[in-house]
Amino acid sequence: MANIRDIARESGLSIGTISRYINSTGYVSEESAKKIQMVINEMNYTPNQHARALFNSKSKIIGLVFPSLINPYFSELATIFEHLLQEKGYVIILCNTEDSREKELQALELLKGFRVEGIILGRSQCKNELNKINIPMISYESTVENNNIITVSADNYKGGAQAFEHLYKKGCRKLLHIKGPTSFEATQLRYEGFIDSANKKGIKPEIINFDTDFDLQNKNYIDGVLDNYDMKKYDGIFVFNDIVAAQMLRYLNEKQIKVPKDIKLLGFDNSYICDLLSPRLSTIEQPIISIAERCIELLFEIIDGKEVYEKEHLITTRIIQRETT
Amino acid sequence: MANIRDIARESGLSIGTISRYINSTGYVSEESAKKIQMVINEMNYTPNQHARALFNSKSKIIGLVFPSLINPYFSELATIFEHLLQEKGYVIILCNTEDSREKELQALELLKGFRVEGIILGRSQCKNELNKINIPMISYESTVENNNIITVSADNYKGGAQAFEHLYKKGCRKLLHIKGPTSFEATQLRYEGFIDSANKKGIKPEIINFDTDFDLQNKNYIDGVLDNYDMKKYDGIFVFNDIVAAQMLRYLNEKQIKVPKDIKLLGFDNSYICDLLSPRLSTIEQPIISIAERCIELLFEIIDGKEVYEKEHLITTRIIQRETT
Repeated sequence: MANIRDIARESGLSIGTISRYINSTGYVSEESAKKIQMVINEMNYTPNQHARALFNSKSKIIGLVFPSLINPYFSELATIFEHLLQEKGYVIILCNTEDSREKELQALELLKGFRVEGIILGRSQCKNELNKINIPMISYESTVENNNIITVSADNYKGGAQAFEHLYKKGCRKLLHIKGPTSFEATQLRYEGFIDSANKKGIKPEIINFDTDFDLQNKNYIDGVLDNYDMKKYDGIFVFNDIVAAQMLRYLNEKQIKVPKDIKLLGFDNSYICDLLSPRLSTIEQPIISIAERCIELLFEIIDGKEVYEKEHLITTRIIQRETT
Repeated sequence: MANIRDIARESGLSIGTISRYINSTGYVSEESAKKIQMVINEMNYTPNQHARALFNSKSKIIGLVFPSLINPYFSELATIFEHLLQEKGYVIILCNTEDSREKELQALELLKGFRVEGIILGRSQCKNELNKINIPMISYESTVENNNIITVSADNYKGGAQAFEHLYKKGCRKLLHIKGPTSFEATQLRYEGFIDSANKKGIKPEIINFDTDFDLQNKNYIDGVLDNYDMKKYDGIFVFNDIVAAQMLRYLNEKQIKVPKDIKLLGFDNSYICDLLSPRLSTIEQPIISIAERCIELLFEIIDGKEVYEKEHLITTRIIQRETT
């Protein structure tokens, strides 16, 4: 592939002149500019971003560290991030961690090597290790105490409370909660908000603990767990996210338990899957566009050297009633 | 962030020595190596990948150009690519095109700037323009005639034929096909395989043309289209992909049309969504892991300078019967 030396040789101009023209860093005569552009077109030359990154420390890369793209909420969020960053002239390097702390640390080290200008970290399993990274960073869904990393998150605690209030208003009193892994801060808070609100009304929901998020290798995990419970005991179920709620709905349909007549069912996320199910899934919305925009806005404030005083940014959730409640 | 000059200054050794040590490109005494590593640890230094990319033309980046990550088949495929490339020490730069030719060309230009070592292009809308790119490239789901770009694809034509044969065996004679956009080569071939096989048996399926893939901005597009048709006329439906089949299933459920009793329904992809639906969706499987592995294997053969003689690699599909047929 042609490089800057080839352009200099072909145009008979100096590397310095070519560099000034390409990077708009100084004066180039109109005649030289014309000649350089002609040679660039002829040689099908694209400026080398690595040279730019070395020269002005602007790699134009943002690292996106996510558990995986299998959960539809994460794939939607990644797609929005890509879109917003594309508009700003940035690309994404994507690293999946499968919720492994080791893989996350490896990914961060890798992104450091690429001198990414910023990192968006989704559902981090790291804590104090993040202090060492020294790259502008937004943590989505995981707070890091005693340090400067900005967190953006839905208000999961209030979202859990909204879930209870909605089911309560619909007349549900015999509640079940499918709880996400304890290591996921967001689903832990949804659980706490749900339980605290229920307790205030004198209701003690039963809990089923899930060790994992939805997992391709283990698509029927839910069936094995649920078969130990009698679903007829409950009149309302709140599930920690939409994709597991979709599995729950499929399970209830298979057991001929009618939703919403026999049991009301509520998810969390408002991912696109809600509208693909029948009945369509009621859920607590994490406003995905606001969340994505806030992450990008704050990340670029840090990149631009501004001080961000508020460390924890909570985005308000709301109930989206469809047909399962 | 510390750079190679800082390491040289702190260790009292030359930049050349440090570079030989970091890049393993020549002799460094044991004593010097020890000293350099100590300083690297102290200064929390990570080698700059951009310098490496300039020095040895190995950027260790693969570009992944996909329409979006919203379709669960694409998000699953992207996750597998990331995993396979991570094992090889490569990262992914992700670019979404929303099936726009302009965005795809922009993405390719961008990836050229980052001197990616290879590109995986999913459902490309470009044709001859790809000749100009001059980067090792695998096209997934789009053949480029008269040039050297290797295509990997499910055997969509045969998959379409399998769809017909399966519905025919199940006793369906009044067939409907929901056909994907004509600009998607893969869904066009599914349509042709389906229709050709049906015609051989003297059956003329009705066709409903969809202008778009599943689209977040337009989640109820299907309802508006289907309301112009009387679903009771059909006993078997083949839909061009799983996510649109999921919408079809939701639509039929809402219209109290029983699947599979009244109508048998078949998707295409075997994405994870099939097992989330009730009844669970029967589909034609694109073997996703074989497809991903073949793409990576061929891409690295090209990167390593090997000649790949076969230009079009078709992966055999198969019927996965679940509960909708």
